[in-house]
Amino acid sequence: MAPRTTQILEAAARLIARRGVRGLRVEELAAEAGVSTGLIYYHFKDRTGILRHTLEFINDRAERYTTARDEDAAPPDPREELMETLLLELQDTPEVRENSAAWGELRASAVFDEALRGDLARATLVWVQELSALLGAVRPTASAPALAEAAERLTAQLEGLSMRWLSGGLPIDRARDLMRGAIRAELAVLGAQEPGAVE
Amino acid sequence: MAPRTTQILEAAARLIARRGVRGLRVEELAAEAGVSTGLIYYHFKDRTGILRHTLEFINDRAERYTTARDEDAAPPDPREELMETLLLELQDTPEVRENSAAWGELRASAVFDEALRGDLARATLVWVQELSALLGAVRPTASAPALAEAAERLTAQLEGLSMRWLSGGLPIDRARDLMRGAIRAELAVLGAQEPGAVE
Repeated sequence: MAPRTTQILEAAARLIARRGVRGLRVEELAAEAGVSTGLIYYHFKDRTGILRHTLEFINDRAERYTTARDEDAAPPDPREELMETLLLELQDTPEVRENSAAWGELRASAVFDEALRGDLARATLVWVQELSALLGAVRPTASAPALAEAAERLTAQLEGLSMRWLSGGLPIDRARDLMRGAIRAELAVLGAQEPGAVE
Repeated sequence: MAPRTTQILEAAARLIARRGVRGLRVEELAAEAGVSTGLIYYHFKDRTGILRHTLEFINDRAERYTTARDEDAAPPDPREELMETLLLELQDTPEVRENSAAWGELRASAVFDEALRGDLARATLVWVQELSALLGAVRPTASAPALAEAAERLTAQLEGLSMRWLSGGLPIDRARDLMRGAIRAELAVLGAQEPGAVE
């Protein structure tokens, strides 16, 4: 993506995380990104276009920080990789906080804005499929529907905990502990479905 | 509560569920409730006062529809009562949809509005404690911290699934199935902590 459009999407994610989707004005976005409103309309057509591209942008960014690995390190074992991938979304760093707040806002505003629903559903599906694959690496004999169910629950659990953390009702360490417990519970259920499996 | 204030809060819940917290204007609320803006300011002082009382109002209403029972029916067994209480929050009826949308909106806007955070955290705590008690009735020998953890996870899970349902990404029947699975998984974990417990 061209540097200029990246600059606009970075500014959009920042503004949404700071004040929400509903307060996002194109004039304000232009000022934050240091570009003209004309350039924004040229690249993204309208407000919906901005929101849809911002959703894609924060997804790509989350993909980056949840899969970044030290190339010299040994490949993590599947259970470690599963835990790490989910727990990297619950970190009190400016990047994760901004990304999670923007994602939560886009999810919340899709309740009222049908234009965002399709993209959001597709992005969620991709996330659920990736997590199913990680769960399947830990529980290779679990059925595909059982893995998909566990992945759907764990991603919704993460969103629920993340919103509580961001809205000030849940300390980040407690959120991480609760998430670890959720992963263990789902693995136990998936393990119980494998005859003779022992954790 | 006086009928007039109830009328105002019903209108506020309706408007928030329809268009979100951020679009709520006092003039519009007055029109929806059929009262003067002066009366609204008299009873609720300011916009924050309206939002805080609406939060309390939708909580009381959820309390009503999740605990309503036929008085002649036999008391439900603890496991049934637990399942029912959580699943009554995932129903595609106008009342539940409106209440859940308003709750989700208040949760989402607390990310940006600190004034709501205290009330929201207290309401969540009460909910977690009530659910802990229901879980404890099914798993009487589980420890209090283990019950609280399970209750915190299940309520966050419900919020996460509810937002997906309301934002159009998850059919209600699937949301209910996933919630049933989450309850079963938490009960299995709590049961495993009781020596000799069999489900």
